[in-house]
Amino acid sequence: MRTAILEVLKHNSGQYISGEDISHTLKVSRTAVWKHIRALKEDGYEIEAHPRLGYALRQNTDRLLPAEIKAQLTSDILGREIHYFSETDSTNNEAKRLATNGCQEGTIVVAEAQGSGRGRLARGWFSPPGKGIWLSVVLRPPFGPMEAAKCTLMAAVAVNRAINEVTGAGCGIKWPNDILCNGRKVVGILTEMSAEMDAINHIVIGMGINVNIEPQEFPSEIAATATSLSIASGHQVPRVKLLTAILAELENVYNVVKTSGFVPVLADWKSQSITLGQQVDVRGVDRSFTGVAIDIDADGALLIETPQGLERVLAGDVSIRPALTGQ
Amino acid sequence: MRTAILEVLKHNSGQYISGEDISHTLKVSRTAVWKHIRALKEDGYEIEAHPRLGYALRQNTDRLLPAEIKAQLTSDILGREIHYFSETDSTNNEAKRLATNGCQEGTIVVAEAQGSGRGRLARGWFSPPGKGIWLSVVLRPPFGPMEAAKCTLMAAVAVNRAINEVTGAGCGIKWPNDILCNGRKVVGILTEMSAEMDAINHIVIGMGINVNIEPQEFPSEIAATATSLSIASGHQVPRVKLLTAILAELENVYNVVKTSGFVPVLADWKSQSITLGQQVDVRGVDRSFTGVAIDIDADGALLIETPQGLERVLAGDVSIRPALTGQ
Repeated sequence: MRTAILEVLKHNSGQYISGEDISHTLKVSRTAVWKHIRALKEDGYEIEAHPRLGYALRQNTDRLLPAEIKAQLTSDILGREIHYFSETDSTNNEAKRLATNGCQEGTIVVAEAQGSGRGRLARGWFSPPGKGIWLSVVLRPPFGPMEAAKCTLMAAVAVNRAINEVTGAGCGIKWPNDILCNGRKVVGILTEMSAEMDAINHIVIGMGINVNIEPQEFPSEIAATATSLSIASGHQVPRVKLLTAILAELENVYNVVKTSGFVPVLADWKSQSITLGQQVDVRGVDRSFTGVAIDIDADGALLIETPQGLERVLAGDVSIRPALTGQ
Repeated sequence: MRTAILEVLKHNSGQYISGEDISHTLKVSRTAVWKHIRALKEDGYEIEAHPRLGYALRQNTDRLLPAEIKAQLTSDILGREIHYFSETDSTNNEAKRLATNGCQEGTIVVAEAQGSGRGRLARGWFSPPGKGIWLSVVLRPPFGPMEAAKCTLMAAVAVNRAINEVTGAGCGIKWPNDILCNGRKVVGILTEMSAEMDAINHIVIGMGINVNIEPQEFPSEIAATATSLSIASGHQVPRVKLLTAILAELENVYNVVKTSGFVPVLADWKSQSITLGQQVDVRGVDRSFTGVAIDIDADGALLIETPQGLERVLAGDVSIRPALTGQ
């Protein structure tokens, strides 16, 4: 019934419709209409109530409500099952629980806020309510766990493309899977898998996307290194539109991988990379070195030319050296 | 108190001790002694009760009870936390739940029976009560997911060595991780992992070991291809002794891998292999072929010489062609 009332309000595109008309059209009591309107307001819909004229929808909600996502969804598989939370510990944890219990491929988990959002290697991810896209996608790819690292590159390609389409912010990919804008991090991707030795049970691709966070809202530890799409593009970004664009791009790239393998995706990754050609510092578990990032190989490893020869990096932290500016 | 009473009985090594003496020594009522004796009998301890002489332990339990395992344990890490079930769906499922909830490395799950024991690729594993070792071990290795496939080879080496030490059955390893005796399967190993792209959260190594299963007890579908250690060795095999030997060997091999990498383990694997040098049939997802298995490479992949050239197999079913016997 709530959805039906919302449909009527949307259909009236900002014009008033009386409670009596809604009540009559949908065969529901005036009191019930009033209760549903109140609930819709709590869901973030701006509905004006006028004593004589009735109700008018002034502004759609910005929340990532399943009904709003479904209305704009263009992907077939990704997002056909949506789990929405006002707050959760971590969308990846929720998605892993769902995947372990057998949810279908393409299931997504979205939250307005994460209590303990996670980045790579157990680091935290700042996830304030209503300001970002905290999203996890469950895939059940037909390939083996040796291929899984490349799913991270696949996700980076899809998200970067969707972001640039929707916001025009001019982002690029930092190896392996961060998305940067003006040298600052705007997206982190955390891919986790459950696998047997020769088959993947499921992969969960988690994304933390700083959408409409203002500069002063970032915690001081990351204020110098993080940014958001609203800062980078100079305008507020519609989250549902961006989210559905990401799902569409990710589904496209995933279909390419399933039919043609990772070669085209690696080529896309290279063309969107901001790491290749740069001087980089690598901090590994047991060694650190500096060199020029020249390519990625078929496994997605970063190839770095150093004075001592070519180095191949599959894991670890890579930071891009800022170009000397003569200061 | 139950453990204390058991200690007294064991200490008396088969001699009778009166209920009154137990009651007096342990400062517990006669009724309580009687109840604990009854519970111990239910746990599989054969205790004789004589109206005048009291109680005597005739035969230790064959169950894989934590106290019995702990009494014979020689490993430091593996088995320091033991979860025991009379029956569970699958010890791997239990172990994965424990690992996800943060259990310590070396935690093991044992069950007398599995309701839905699993082999590789969602196949079943016959797991009747009290006749096998249905065991899962949780590891948190410091290396990346690309190395995980080799953990399966590591487990095969450890289990094969322990089995041959304890039973003298003369088993060998069929690539990648089945253990065969007289051409029939006696152990299956299912390794599962949860990982990020550059770090393993945990690995669960599950083993199904056919210990004391009689020929007529196997279901007809596997009667021709399965065997047990009691059949192969001609005698009943003490399960707790075998289980603790497996934990000790696995811990040894794991320590070798952590300090020296997989090279020594791959060498051990080769020396225990019954696949190398054999004519094999490979049934893969998208192709099947026949050739001679000549080696494994540094990733643990099987190298097969075929008329069309060298093939490298990382996943799929490999069956050894029986030698022609002129029949």
